[in-house]
Amino acid sequence: MDFNPSAKTLDYRQRLIAFMREHIEPIEAQYHKENRRLNADGNWRTWQVPPMVAELKAKARAAGLWNLFLPDSELAAGLTTLEYAPLAEVMGHNLLAPEIFNCNAPDTGNMEVLYHFGNAQQQQQWLTPLLNGEIRSVFCMTEPDVASSDATNMQARIVADGDEVVISGRKWWSTGLGHPQAKFAIVMGLTDPEAEKHRRHSMVLVPLDTPGVTIERMLPAFGDYDAPYGHGEVLFDQVRVPASNVIGDLGDGFKIAQGRLGPGRIHHCMRALGAAERALQLFVHRGQDRIAFGRSLLQLGGNMERLADMRIAIDQARLLTFYAAWKIDQVGAMKALAEISSIKVAVPKALQMVVDEAIQIFGGAGMSQDVPLTALFAMARALRIVDGPDQVHRATIAKVELAKYRER
Amino acid sequence: MDFNPSAKTLDYRQRLIAFMREHIEPIEAQYHKENRRLNADGNWRTWQVPPMVAELKAKARAAGLWNLFLPDSELAAGLTTLEYAPLAEVMGHNLLAPEIFNCNAPDTGNMEVLYHFGNAQQQQQWLTPLLNGEIRSVFCMTEPDVASSDATNMQARIVADGDEVVISGRKWWSTGLGHPQAKFAIVMGLTDPEAEKHRRHSMVLVPLDTPGVTIERMLPAFGDYDAPYGHGEVLFDQVRVPASNVIGDLGDGFKIAQGRLGPGRIHHCMRALGAAERALQLFVHRGQDRIAFGRSLLQLGGNMERLADMRIAIDQARLLTFYAAWKIDQVGAMKALAEISSIKVAVPKALQMVVDEAIQIFGGAGMSQDVPLTALFAMARALRIVDGPDQVHRATIAKVELAKYRER
Amino acid sequence: MDFNPSAKTLDYRQRLIAFMREHIEPIEAQYHKENRRLNADGNWRTWQVPPMVAELKAKARAAGLWNLFLPDSELAAGLTTLEYAPLAEVMGHNLLAPEIFNCNAPDTGNMEVLYHFGNAQQQQQWLTPLLNGEIRSVFCMTEPDVASSDATNMQARIVADGDEVVISGRKWWSTGLGHPQAKFAIVMGLTDPEAEKHRRHSMVLVPLDTPGVTIERMLPAFGDYDAPYGHGEVLFDQVRVPASNVIGDLGDGFKIAQGRLGPGRIHHCMRALGAAERALQLFVHRGQDRIAFGRSLLQLGGNMERLADMRIAIDQARLLTFYAAWKIDQVGAMKALAEISSIKVAVPKALQMVVDEAIQIFGGAGMSQDVPLTALFAMARALRIVDGPDQVHRATIAKVELAKYRER
Amino acid sequence: MDFNPSAKTLDYRQRLIAFMREHIEPIEAQYHKENRRLNADGNWRTWQVPPMVAELKAKARAAGLWNLFLPDSELAAGLTTLEYAPLAEVMGHNLLAPEIFNCNAPDTGNMEVLYHFGNAQQQQQWLTPLLNGEIRSVFCMTEPDVASSDATNMQARIVADGDEVVISGRKWWSTGLGHPQAKFAIVMGLTDPEAEKHRRHSMVLVPLDTPGVTIERMLPAFGDYDAPYGHGEVLFDQVRVPASNVIGDLGDGFKIAQGRLGPGRIHHCMRALGAAERALQLFVHRGQDRIAFGRSLLQLGGNMERLADMRIAIDQARLLTFYAAWKIDQVGAMKALAEISSIKVAVPKALQMVVDEAIQIFGGAGMSQDVPLTALFAMARALRIVDGPDQVHRATIAKVELAKYRER
Repeated sequence: MDFNPSAKTLDYRQRLIAFMREHIEPIEAQYHKENRRLNADGNWRTWQVPPMVAELKAKARAAGLWNLFLPDSELAAGLTTLEYAPLAEVMGHNLLAPEIFNCNAPDTGNMEVLYHFGNAQQQQQWLTPLLNGEIRSVFCMTEPDVASSDATNMQARIVADGDEVVISGRKWWSTGLGHPQAKFAIVMGLTDPEAEKHRRHSMVLVPLDTPGVTIERMLPAFGDYDAPYGHGEVLFDQVRVPASNVIGDLGDGFKIAQGRLGPGRIHHCMRALGAAERALQLFVHRGQDRIAFGRSLLQLGGNMERLADMRIAIDQARLLTFYAAWKIDQVGAMKALAEISSIKVAVPKALQMVVDEAIQIFGGAGMSQDVPLTALFAMARALRIVDGPDQVHRATIAKVELAKYRER
Repeated sequence: MDFNPSAKTLDYRQRLIAFMREHIEPIEAQYHKENRRLNADGNWRTWQVPPMVAELKAKARAAGLWNLFLPDSELAAGLTTLEYAPLAEVMGHNLLAPEIFNCNAPDTGNMEVLYHFGNAQQQQQWLTPLLNGEIRSVFCMTEPDVASSDATNMQARIVADGDEVVISGRKWWSTGLGHPQAKFAIVMGLTDPEAEKHRRHSMVLVPLDTPGVTIERMLPAFGDYDAPYGHGEVLFDQVRVPASNVIGDLGDGFKIAQGRLGPGRIHHCMRALGAAERALQLFVHRGQDRIAFGRSLLQLGGNMERLADMRIAIDQARLLTFYAAWKIDQVGAMKALAEISSIKVAVPKALQMVVDEAIQIFGGAGMSQDVPLTALFAMARALRIVDGPDQVHRATIAKVELAKYRER
Repeated sequence: MDFNPSAKTLDYRQRLIAFMREHIEPIEAQYHKENRRLNADGNWRTWQVPPMVAELKAKARAAGLWNLFLPDSELAAGLTTLEYAPLAEVMGHNLLAPEIFNCNAPDTGNMEVLYHFGNAQQQQQWLTPLLNGEIRSVFCMTEPDVASSDATNMQARIVADGDEVVISGRKWWSTGLGHPQAKFAIVMGLTDPEAEKHRRHSMVLVPLDTPGVTIERMLPAFGDYDAPYGHGEVLFDQVRVPASNVIGDLGDGFKIAQGRLGPGRIHHCMRALGAAERALQLFVHRGQDRIAFGRSLLQLGGNMERLADMRIAIDQARLLTFYAAWKIDQVGAMKALAEISSIKVAVPKALQMVVDEAIQIFGGAGMSQDVPLTALFAMARALRIVDGPDQVHRATIAKVELAKYRER
Repeated sequence: MDFNPSAKTLDYRQRLIAFMREHIEPIEAQYHKENRRLNADGNWRTWQVPPMVAELKAKARAAGLWNLFLPDSELAAGLTTLEYAPLAEVMGHNLLAPEIFNCNAPDTGNMEVLYHFGNAQQQQQWLTPLLNGEIRSVFCMTEPDVASSDATNMQARIVADGDEVVISGRKWWSTGLGHPQAKFAIVMGLTDPEAEKHRRHSMVLVPLDTPGVTIERMLPAFGDYDAPYGHGEVLFDQVRVPASNVIGDLGDGFKIAQGRLGPGRIHHCMRALGAAERALQLFVHRGQDRIAFGRSLLQLGGNMERLADMRIAIDQARLLTFYAAWKIDQVGAMKALAEISSIKVAVPKALQMVVDEAIQIFGGAGMSQDVPLTALFAMARALRIVDGPDQVHRATIAKVELAKYRER
């Protein structure tokens, strides 16, 4: 056992921190202000990306801090899941950073899907511009009318018709759908209800300008439209794309989804831990700076004990996430199901607790947008639902636990 | 001991429920839609009140469901704090309802201040139009630059200058400041730093169109500007008003604030319990209607146990609030400090827990504005800060507890 | 609504407190020392009752502080469930007190059973000596081999055979079975497995010296044998008693059990709240008396906040229990199921939290028997299991909640 | 980063598990029965060690499973703190096991003290027989009359007098003091109140048969005397030992204590995690075997979710402990203070939660001694106090956290 990160990780970590200090942190407030000015509400059709984003992306790419999530030595830095994890945490310190380093969801997951399962033509057409940060993409899985926690509920259809496939259904919470550069979606749907349970679904690439695709609205999450990305509701009304847009084969949907979700959950969780560190940092600063009843807030009541509990919660959750990442690297995501589910429960819970305390010490300011705490809270709250609600993950963990007893 | 509400309460309760079923619930969705259409963002200068509000207020007044919070038999129904409490809960079921019945904060608290402490001229000029629901008002206490949990930190000044007083300072989280009908603020500030601790502050009536009053912005609370009310940040730059605008005498500020906060916290907490019942109701409906893994969500995992815990938390908190209301009626707010502080801790905690679970069972929909859960969550979260953060109230409770040991 | 206890309650409360101060508290430590000397271990056959108990019982009876739990004006003080509740709390301050006032479980419940359901002969033979405090009794319900939370699991049989009934089976956690004065048990068992679900069981009076009754052992609860009462495991091997020993009719068991459990749970919970007040009192004393790092323990870290949370938890749980008692008095235990289940969950949880914190502030001493905290902890922990585990009560609460939605 | 245990650890782990399966588990129930028969109460003067213990110790030593905690390649296996940690967990599965492998507290800590700080003569006289498992020892630190969480409160004195030192004072919670083979204590006390804060205390070796040493009683912890070890209260009345019995120099007490506590807390915590795994295992077995309402208990209500939360809590706490062990090995205990304090808070909390749930699913049986759950609960509860209460460790964690901000 060894808790030292690899030399590669340490090097990239230092460079990321330096880049963020030099280039991102100084313009963070300005970015949010500009972003609010340009994109104040849910009218996503007019959303624009503040110009500093493209500039920063170019700088990041030039600095070699680009696509670090991708486990490929030629296309990227060839980091393992475990090696990338501490870097995702660093990016999580700043809500803007993942985009700058081309490591933003859902593009990362979509790139992984195309990298692992896309054919050469698909990779050339869609993966390359994503890796270049020229376009953005969307992942359409959740549906408004059914409990998406149970994948067998999925109602959207992906049906073969000659050399085309026809997509019908409604999806929502499709992140990034409001982005001006969003060009295509990976859509998951039901192909063969009679097939074996894990062979029923397919994934298909759907350019967003295909006839029949209607983006109906963006959804606010805790009041935040997350412009210029957005979480959209989209109707697929008899949408036709070439059969060559199917990723892998019809029926491969579940297999691809599982592969996508493993590392993706590591990324989400590590970014969330970065967010938690940010919230803790804000808690400390406010706790030290504000005075009440003759003492700093930190010295009052249980605040020092709270600080300790926040530190413990974050450190425990981080180690659990490193462990899950290591297990994915060692035996693959399918054999690390319980570990992945464990972090999906533990990390957002830790983040929510930490942010809640940070809001409390800030008082009214914590509720406002003068500090990013409500945005971090929304991240925590959403993470307890996104990619499977806590309850589904607890069920997975318990099932894997019970299986140990049958093996004995 | 007797847990039956008074006959008056039962009668009003039934009438309120009937009115809300008949008049408010049917237009609730439409109101929120219209409100969002009119007031989509923080540009409060253009905020409008959807026209159905005035219509509903007229109907409520005609039905005698008006100013029920006011403990005066001529001006209102003459209900005690305890008698009004269950009615505040009913209104809390619907975010729109308190306004319709002219029982909305901060007007209720301001009316109580004017009713108990205002002189005849002040009452005629400001209380009467408030009781008529013709204007709205603001309460300016919290300041951005100091920990407002410690009142002695307050920096805004209210200084006598001949037959005028001069107000200087910055306030924020002044609720209702963005409302088109907001006409005046009750401002609290420091008059005499050398006086005995509880005689240092004053309250003064400041018309919002007085020169030197600058509303700088509205603050989003968890992303919600709460249009058309708003929570504003306002600068008082050498604002002069007649000395006759002082409520009571210079130095009475603390005394008035305490009187204001007692029943006001009962109102807040009872509305919060109504909100909790609403969230629980949504939880049940969603839990019964959605199917996953072949069962309703309610039948899965720990959801039935969660439902029980929610019910217990609400019922406990409600009884504690009734008890605090009863104690205020019996011995006055100053001798019910610990009881009032107890509900300020317990009720928002219960509401936050219940809403958090309701969001969880709704999944993505719970994060959106398709159901009012994030608004209820913001209410819960804010209540843990507004009128004193949890920590300050815990300190009060503990102090009162320890005092019992000294008395023995 | 009114939170003032009745004049009768206030009078008895004052007298109980005075009696306890004068007679019980001064000998409390001596009693426990003597009791440990006499009854150091699980060898229950030699257990003795320290002599001061009989003396104190005589004094209590002479003072009219006797059988206060019984809602009968001739045999006792004729207090309602709600009127008795605050008195049970007072007794709960001291582990010895309930016995002194002849208000100790399981005798109270057994007396209620005989009072409400026993015939004249049964009352004369068994109820009268219990009311006189001359004998003690046992209630045999829980079984070691099945999940007793589901009453239909019960395996012990009570079968009619001519003018006798035959009892067979094994029971445990039968409280008081080790007491030298324990004379009889009320045994619940299955009579007719084919009958309607709530008509299958019977209750029968079984003198403990009946052939076939074998007390096998006393069970330690958290290491405590609770001498000289004990919680016993007992085998009924073809035990024959006259058919006239059946309480009510064969098949009445469930009905009687429900009636027994309603007020009984109020008593348990109120005593538990008295225990919680005792623990809180110990917490305060220790917190004030011990010094570390230059301050009293209470002034360190989050201890004042903890004190506030303890106070809130107790007050909430008490009001909920009063409310459940009031509901039993108003509409009967069968229509107050959810309220009774709510206190069975909330009160032991509050007690366990409070005692856990008290142990913590005492450090090592809290773990020892120098203070009664581990005994109070065992009480809390047991109460989460006894008379139905939390989970079963949560299920009841949730079912009652859902029923409201069907009614609408 | 790498989560694979070392080959040495894996080998020892397998051998320990095999030994425990073959030799300890089969006699576990018999041991406890025999132990209770021999040592039923607090009369420690007659306590005996059940004979199977010596036999098992001989077997363990012969198998090379002996003194594994000691980081010395000649005297033991030369395992690092991190390498030993998973082995301590295995031993924690069984309350009897640590003694069998000569890895039991407080002997382990005392052996470490003698190993690191004892001179040759002290090592020969005291360390060697301890390493041989021939005698047992005691550590005297906590005092009854002061808050031991603040070491500066310590009142016992260790004063030089010629070539002797004189020990005066009272200690309690001295574990192992009741053991028939307990031969000496390491006593910590105040030597020079005027010295620099960390140079005031000394440690000295005191044979228990020295005149003036009076063992006054054993203390039950949650009702358990932990025979044949015991937690004793001992009076040192002008006890004289040769100055050569001082460990290191007078004034070295604090330094030695810190060194002792680092690895010792790892050992405690890892054993506690083994205990948690045992409790979880019992939870699963009971949950699968018992049937209520037609389903196994595990399938009812929230029990599967609870199982998941237990698994997460244990896994997080374990990784945190491994990390702390690694840090001790890398930079020493003094630079791993926050990490050590973190596990002292997190691990007992996890254990207490897991055991509490296990007790709940067992119902009454969980409260009895038919399963070891109350003993495991007492372990958890004690661990939140022993070696510094949670609150002191939280203060340490918070202080270290704040120091990071000063460094920046």
